Amino acid sequence: MLLEAIYHRPKQNWCYAYDQETLHVRIRTKRNDISKVTLVWGDKYRFDTYKYETEMTVFASDRLFDYWEASVKPPFRRFTYGFLIHGDNEQVWFDEKGFSDEISDDIPTYFNFPYMNKPDIHEPPAWVKEAVFYQIFPERFANGDPSLDPEHVEEWGGTPTPYNYFGGDIQGVIDHLDHLQKLGVTCIYFTPLFESPTNHKYDTIDYMKIDPQFGDEEKLKELVRECHQRDMKVMLDAVFNHSGRLFEPFQDVIKHGPDSKYADWFIIREFPIDVVDDIPTYDTFSFERNMPKFNTENPEVKEYLLNVARYWIEEVGIDSWRLDVANEVDHQFWREFRQAVKEINPDVYILGEIWHDSMMWLQGDQFDAVMNYLFTNSVLDFFAKDAVDSKQFAEAIYSLQAFYPQHISEVMFNLLDSHDTPRLLHMCQEDKRKMKLAALFQLTYTGAPCIYYGDEFGLTGENDPGCRKCMVWEEKDQDLDLFDFYRNLIALRRMYPAFRTGSLTFLQAEAEDKRLVYERRDEHHSFIIAVNNEDKAQTISFPLDQGRYEDVWAGDPFTHEQGLYSVSLQPYDFVILKKQLKSTEVPEGSAPFANAACN
Amino acid sequence: MLLEAIYHRPKQNWCYAYDQETLHVRIRTKRNDISKVTLVWGDKYRFDTYKYETEMTVFASDRLFDYWEASVKPPFRRFTYGFLIHGDNEQVWFDEKGFSDEISDDIPTYFNFPYMNKPDIHEPPAWVKEAVFYQIFPERFANGDPSLDPEHVEEWGGTPTPYNYFGGDIQGVIDHLDHLQKLGVTCIYFTPLFESPTNHKYDTIDYMKIDPQFGDEEKLKELVRECHQRDMKVMLDAVFNHSGRLFEPFQDVIKHGPDSKYADWFIIREFPIDVVDDIPTYDTFSFERNMPKFNTENPEVKEYLLNVARYWIEEVGIDSWRLDVANEVDHQFWREFRQAVKEINPDVYILGEIWHDSMMWLQGDQFDAVMNYLFTNSVLDFFAKDAVDSKQFAEAIYSLQAFYPQHISEVMFNLLDSHDTPRLLHMCQEDKRKMKLAALFQLTYTGAPCIYYGDEFGLTGENDPGCRKCMVWEEKDQDLDLFDFYRNLIALRRMYPAFRTGSLTFLQAEAEDKRLVYERRDEHHSFIIAVNNEDKAQTISFPLDQGRYEDVWAGDPFTHEQGLYSVSLQPYDFVILKKQLKSTEVPEGSAPFANAACN
Repeated sequence: MLLEAIYHRPKQNWCYAYDQETLHVRIRTKRNDISKVTLVWGDKYRFDTYKYETEMTVFASDRLFDYWEASVKPPFRRFTYGFLIHGDNEQVWFDEKGFSDEISDDIPTYFNFPYMNKPDIHEPPAWVKEAVFYQIFPERFANGDPSLDPEHVEEWGGTPTPYNYFGGDIQGVIDHLDHLQKLGVTCIYFTPLFESPTNHKYDTIDYMKIDPQFGDEEKLKELVRECHQRDMKVMLDAVFNHSGRLFEPFQDVIKHGPDSKYADWFIIREFPIDVVDDIPTYDTFSFERNMPKFNTENPEVKEYLLNVARYWIEEVGIDSWRLDVANEVDHQFWREFRQAVKEINPDVYILGEIWHDSMMWLQGDQFDAVMNYLFTNSVLDFFAKDAVDSKQFAEAIYSLQAFYPQHISEVMFNLLDSHDTPRLLHMCQEDKRKMKLAALFQLTYTGAPCIYYGDEFGLTGENDPGCRKCMVWEEKDQDLDLFDFYRNLIALRRMYPAFRTGSLTFLQAEAEDKRLVYERRDEHHSFIIAVNNEDKAQTISFPLDQGRYEDVWAGDPFTHEQGLYSVSLQPYDFVILKKQLKSTEVPEGSAPFANAACN
Repeated sequence: MLLEAIYHRPKQNWCYAYDQETLHVRIRTKRNDISKVTLVWGDKYRFDTYKYETEMTVFASDRLFDYWEASVKPPFRRFTYGFLIHGDNEQVWFDEKGFSDEISDDIPTYFNFPYMNKPDIHEPPAWVKEAVFYQIFPERFANGDPSLDPEHVEEWGGTPTPYNYFGGDIQGVIDHLDHLQKLGVTCIYFTPLFESPTNHKYDTIDYMKIDPQFGDEEKLKELVRECHQRDMKVMLDAVFNHSGRLFEPFQDVIKHGPDSKYADWFIIREFPIDVVDDIPTYDTFSFERNMPKFNTENPEVKEYLLNVARYWIEEVGIDSWRLDVANEVDHQFWREFRQAVKEINPDVYILGEIWHDSMMWLQGDQFDAVMNYLFTNSVLDFFAKDAVDSKQFAEAIYSLQAFYPQHISEVMFNLLDSHDTPRLLHMCQEDKRKMKLAALFQLTYTGAPCIYYGDEFGLTGENDPGCRKCMVWEEKDQDLDLFDFYRNLIALRRMYPAFRTGSLTFLQAEAEDKRLVYERRDEHHSFIIAVNNEDKAQTISFPLDQGRYEDVWAGDPFTHEQGLYSVSLQPYDFVILKKQLKSTEVPEGSAPFANAACN
């Protein structure tokens, strides 16, 4: 037994409250090294009376490790525990004191989750588990009100540059809500709408004003109203790490230097405000002189930004904030942000832009979730870039599942591209079949998927500015097959909870192979998805329980006897098999897909 | 190279801001498996320009692992990094994506500490690093005002029971401040002083009132004034997890049930307030019916308790709060507690009572430190209980050093006994020599030591109530040799920063051996302490650099040539060698110890 591989530390993703009654406990061991792990637990104040044993199960395995999990409901919300770990010929006891040969009866040396206090239990807004996001870069989505067009506006559909304008606006979005609804979108994510001198608007002039190019506050209210009537929600982008250079307080600092009453709103290393040897004399986002970093330790700054956060929820009714460059702002600010926002409406979804390990922002005191770039990278490596094989992909996804608590994974913001990356289709070398497989995985995986505007019509493009092209509204330019694909898959996802909160198991994922079979399963359904992620026709065979199945995409029901099931798949093709496990109130939904084009 | 043993995750004790400029980075590898670890780091926005390599060093090793550390100062407070790990015949690169054969040039997959924001940097009060605490159980320390004695008070020095009284009070403490000052104490920790019906007073009736048995608020003010005049500080005990049964709001709930305006101040599972099958119908501390747990989610409760916290700082000038049963109260409450307290005075030391892994309370948003029972257990196992050998002891201490960030270890509350445990002397089987060795380690180790009242005079006793005996004020009952021992050792500790913030290295700590040699070292001094923790005379030989040394305890200077140094030690004896490393402003302090009795 490899003791060095065994890892557990209370809290974080290792022992956490999933809800007000339930704790999840996890432990890591060397892969294939351990035959059984028994969680021994109880109430520390009466361990003799309230003592339990729960067998743990492996829920994820990556290159090096197996991850075991158990779910328990401590009767008095106090939880004291240790692990009895069984190898082939030996067993060890593992608690806070380390490893020993036998179960310890020294309860004070056990691990502890001292008390499941309600204020600490992180319950992200339930609606996010069901959500399908759609990201809009407003300058490029639709021009609904040409009277607002900025000067030198270019013809819709022209080549985007870092500096040009095409006249997209809020009215344009309102005009096309039918499109989003038809696609199945339930929440729109807008990159910044506030006044700013650029087309991306990440350098804010005025946080209390909609950029006149997009409309005004009344127009945004109209949009939010329209969305809410369609059961759609709205997420805005909060750029609170830095302001724009033209933000009035920063202008005042430029003008009055240390005498400015806003001098302490920013982090000035040396006056005057200048750029010396290509380095601003003040802290900025990156080394970008036009984006001075806020001093969020300053109570005035906090009050200003928190008022902004409150205002757009209270006055305009937005449902979510996406927090730009969230990990470069202090934790303390985000804690106060969460309190301010959740006090108004606990259902507001707080989403941080963090491209890395985000556990320290996801303890329940700061964000509900982050933009799941760790997911993005894994999916792209396998489906778009051909950089890993099926085994490596499955390991990366399992690893991610072990990385965060389950309630976080369920509301993660799973994007495949954005205004900050090349388009998905571009990354798939313009191969629509590959793009479909990536989207298939995204839309059958736990967490809230986000579609970047236009992907559904086959919009492509390189990194910024290429990924910020105008939306295609001429039907001749729209890939309607792709649209149907997205629409059907979204409908499928929304119909079956197994895709949102079911368990995930990779049934086949071999090294040096690009075939992949995985299952999403809850108490009602099992979905088995087989994917041929290679440029040649292949047969995939895998063990399948006996029973009645349906090929969801093709609509064919069939009965399978116990044993291997084989399916021949064209290059980059897939099949989704559905099995009903027990009768359910959820309406059966094969009809809408029967006619869907496949590839 | 054993990849499974390698562990790092940003933040916590693995990558943290030690101060406003400095980050500490740590990584764990299998013990003796790795020859070198290079930290490759830089600024993510201009990695080509700002890229550095820093060699890491092993600062601790335990049974299974080596712990490596590096200290860096990122020029723009952003820190992106990975590890190049060298084994005997191979090297691996380790970053957020896992392990690979070569240094990755894919900077976005590196680990990140995104920004050293000032509000997140945990800087515990500096005075605690220098502090020596002294714990007083006020009912048993000294009776300075017999007019306050409770009914049925018993004669000073009688046998303590869970229920009897001896009349200790605040005046008694004031009367004996000279004693504490002579001993070298710099902060008194009082178990609760607020009104309560018990002798331990952990079941509060009124948080705004000093128990009349002890005095009144004016008397406490006088004590605080007297202490401050002597450069001593005062820590009070905040019992905020639960109130006492006689606390007025709880009485109101008993009386009016769900109609009480305080019904939501507690966590009532079922009305009426009752005990059914030995289980209270409301949440309590343990299953103790007289200690109803506060509902700290309720804003009224928060406001009440935070006002209490503020009041005793603002009105009476206390310097610290010790938080009872701190880990069973919600994190959110403690975050607000910290803000309330630090707003008044950032120098207030916030100490949590947690007997376990406390990392999640020590991120800078909650406590400054915890009662270091992990330290207590390790020291007792070796010095008192003879349960481990020198190797296991050194590993336990190293493990503890790796467990928490350095700035936390420097202000940890290192106790060896308390009102909740048997007396140190008792745990040492009444062997004063063993007790001295335990205290020697405590007082030469990083963190704030705490002496439980009377230990310095040889007071002994079993667990509660035995450990709560009356202080001995008759000189004939005082062990003055032990007092001198403590006094001299405290003076030594206070004189040399090496004992407080220097590095710790175990120079000799073998399996199945009870001899121990360790060094405390800073830029000014090296102290080498050799201990014979066994009941037989032994010689200890260890390599010693050449130079001029002084046997601190005996006062003998000597010159050592390069090579082995040998010292013969009686059973449970020790020697402290001092070497001056460079000239220093710190006054040399051998004189006070020249005459100290040793054993």
